[in-house]
Amino acid sequence: MIQSQKLIEESLKTDAAYNLIESLTTEIGPRLAGSKQEERARAWAVKKMKKLGFKNVRVENFKVNHWERIFEEAKILSPNPQKLRLTALGGSVGTPTKGITGKVVSFKSFKALEKAPLKGFKNKIIFIDEPMTRTKDGSGYSIAVVKRRRATIESSKRGALAVLIRSVGTDSHRFPHTGQTGYKKGVKKIPIAALSAPDADQLKRSLSKGSVKIFLQIKVRSNGQLESGNIIGEIPGQTNKVVIAGAHLDSWDLGTGAVDDGAGVGIVMGAAKVIIDQNVKPKHTIRIILFGSEEVGLIGAKAYAQKHKSDLKNHLVAAESDFGAGEIWKLETSFSKEGLIMAKTLVSILKPLGIERGNNEAYGGPDLIPMRDLGVPVVTLKQNGWDYFDLHHTEDDTFDKIKPESVAQNVAAYSAFLWMSSNTDVDFRKEKLRAQQN
Amino acid sequence: MIQSQKLIEESLKTDAAYNLIESLTTEIGPRLAGSKQEERARAWAVKKMKKLGFKNVRVENFKVNHWERIFEEAKILSPNPQKLRLTALGGSVGTPTKGITGKVVSFKSFKALEKAPLKGFKNKIIFIDEPMTRTKDGSGYSIAVVKRRRATIESSKRGALAVLIRSVGTDSHRFPHTGQTGYKKGVKKIPIAALSAPDADQLKRSLSKGSVKIFLQIKVRSNGQLESGNIIGEIPGQTNKVVIAGAHLDSWDLGTGAVDDGAGVGIVMGAAKVIIDQNVKPKHTIRIILFGSEEVGLIGAKAYAQKHKSDLKNHLVAAESDFGAGEIWKLETSFSKEGLIMAKTLVSILKPLGIERGNNEAYGGPDLIPMRDLGVPVVTLKQNGWDYFDLHHTEDDTFDKIKPESVAQNVAAYSAFLWMSSNTDVDFRKEKLRAQQN
Repeated sequence: MIQSQKLIEESLKTDAAYNLIESLTTEIGPRLAGSKQEERARAWAVKKMKKLGFKNVRVENFKVNHWERIFEEAKILSPNPQKLRLTALGGSVGTPTKGITGKVVSFKSFKALEKAPLKGFKNKIIFIDEPMTRTKDGSGYSIAVVKRRRATIESSKRGALAVLIRSVGTDSHRFPHTGQTGYKKGVKKIPIAALSAPDADQLKRSLSKGSVKIFLQIKVRSNGQLESGNIIGEIPGQTNKVVIAGAHLDSWDLGTGAVDDGAGVGIVMGAAKVIIDQNVKPKHTIRIILFGSEEVGLIGAKAYAQKHKSDLKNHLVAAESDFGAGEIWKLETSFSKEGLIMAKTLVSILKPLGIERGNNEAYGGPDLIPMRDLGVPVVTLKQNGWDYFDLHHTEDDTFDKIKPESVAQNVAAYSAFLWMSSNTDVDFRKEKLRAQQN
Repeated sequence: MIQSQKLIEESLKTDAAYNLIESLTTEIGPRLAGSKQEERARAWAVKKMKKLGFKNVRVENFKVNHWERIFEEAKILSPNPQKLRLTALGGSVGTPTKGITGKVVSFKSFKALEKAPLKGFKNKIIFIDEPMTRTKDGSGYSIAVVKRRRATIESSKRGALAVLIRSVGTDSHRFPHTGQTGYKKGVKKIPIAALSAPDADQLKRSLSKGSVKIFLQIKVRSNGQLESGNIIGEIPGQTNKVVIAGAHLDSWDLGTGAVDDGAGVGIVMGAAKVIIDQNVKPKHTIRIILFGSEEVGLIGAKAYAQKHKSDLKNHLVAAESDFGAGEIWKLETSFSKEGLIMAKTLVSILKPLGIERGNNEAYGGPDLIPMRDLGVPVVTLKQNGWDYFDLHHTEDDTFDKIKPESVAQNVAAYSAFLWMSSNTDVDFRKEKLRAQQN
């Protein structure tokens, strides 16, 4: 307990995490899954971890389907000729080389599209003008993101040429938000792109005045299956058990991946570094994982869970920082009864940082889903995400948006969590999961 | 006086100005000087003025040097390969077709560049990393903009291949700010482009770590001298004298010209419309001028002053709305002694709108410079420009940034100003100017 408070104090004094974010976003920049830049980021991470005193530093490689955008353009042809700012969604197919032209049919939501008849949309471009609600906990995202993942399928079934969506985001700037889309076997793949909010407004206003014809040209490329990887570094303990703090190293191609997820990379590495600097040895190993290829479908997370499947019973608890650089305000857990007692102690230690107790239904983080689904207990050190979706998956996700004080608060909370959970014999696994695993 | 207060009340109730801004920015969009879209905007303005009840609606055409951007790209080649977001400045020449590659030399200000030796910059790309100060009155602009206008000349003299500047703006988003650049006869023209603030930060950080080589490719086109024009509409008076309210109809190509200067167009047309709706006839004619080709060098303003030179003595006073859609907070004048007495009355009427008295050294507005230089008295209904340079000359200058309440306050102030100044025999001309003109 004393040790955790000491770690918090030290965390608030250091700018190691902030400097790591600066270094990653500047020296590497964007780090698309499977790209040369993601490869450079892995080399960066290995070098930094070794330099910071991590042990057992290694890369666990896996393959990822490569995809990259080459060119994208859209314009209203009539009645009011002008360019529209958009970006292809990750994984989208391109248009035919010369582009496509079509009249726009607008739906106010993805649900409205799902309810539409299957005929009458041939050669149309479908526009889903569904906004996202701004919330502190980011809960607007899971609702708004459905169209990003499934609009191609529902539109293609109806004979549409392509789909445009209002960006899944909360800002009103001309930054389209990318993000992975989805296709379905047996349904023809059609292109999908996101309009920035002001461009979606412009299209909406134009449609309110009459019929709108647009031109869309998207060129993408895939170089097939390329190398990606997870980076692992540890503070070795004295048992074969591990506690995990993760983040993801890859980013979308548009920005430099500062809030998504350079911040998380800095925070979890920085938290471990604070512990390393104390020259103390935890009981259980503290393992930092920087996942690769998160953005394109949790590819690194799945690879990790698969590779470590037989050892997941020794994964005591896991947390992931992947929600920007806002301050943590709540600890959520997914714990056993005895785990909850420890959570109470942890919250009392985190209280001076402004962190309160949340529920016992923690999500954990995207890269934890595969291991969570296999029984690993998770916590969410829940950050304030009020502004997160202003920047998320846009080219405006850059280092200037990171506040050092806020990063330090995160590092403090993670260092306390890692230290406490790596020095206890409490079994965090919910009782019903223990039964399943045994 | 009663009439002015009535106009203010009516102005605060109407959304005509706001709707005009919506219509112009949606139905026309960007309106670059000399472009088809500026031509469409002229047709829009004539139609709207006639519909609103303006009289003597006409276009005064002139020619403008056409320039347009076709393509622009920059990337750091080494040590940290990544794209940089920039935009060519208006009037910039392009790079050779295949682009240019050079090492970056950074200066913290334009003044520092001016002081640099004339040798040692051959094949270099000069980067002027000078920030702009945010102020309510926009006074940071005149200092920061010097580099935009003259950096090509000073860099070319020193043998540089091209110039990059930190955008003349106050935001920290990845929106480069364009704006007209300048060349000098006898000095070789080199390309110039502005980096967005986060990209300037990125380049600065990269340079702090060592030598940086970048690639720059800019393609521009000119179709020679094309047609532009000023739009004039009036509320006829009973004398041969006129009072002027102006704004400019053209915009840069990146955004839809909402704050620059769709707002002004809406405000001055809206203010006149409030007077028209009262079915009253002013003593002197109220003339609304929507200038063309302001952005590329006040071409419309110069054409107007030239064409109306012999009649400028009958221009009693002029105001221009070209500083966004922020609330007016100050009345500045450039008046005679008797004019100042009337200004006092006007301020007392405007006070409930939150408008106070400013100095007697008013600038008026960019399109008033040529007529002001020929003796026409001007006023500045000074807007709060705190946020103006976040959007100015960027692609983010779109309709969603306009607040209707603020537009209505502007309309109220302009309608009161126009009514009072068009119903007085006060001579606003400063005494020394009268002597010059007689």
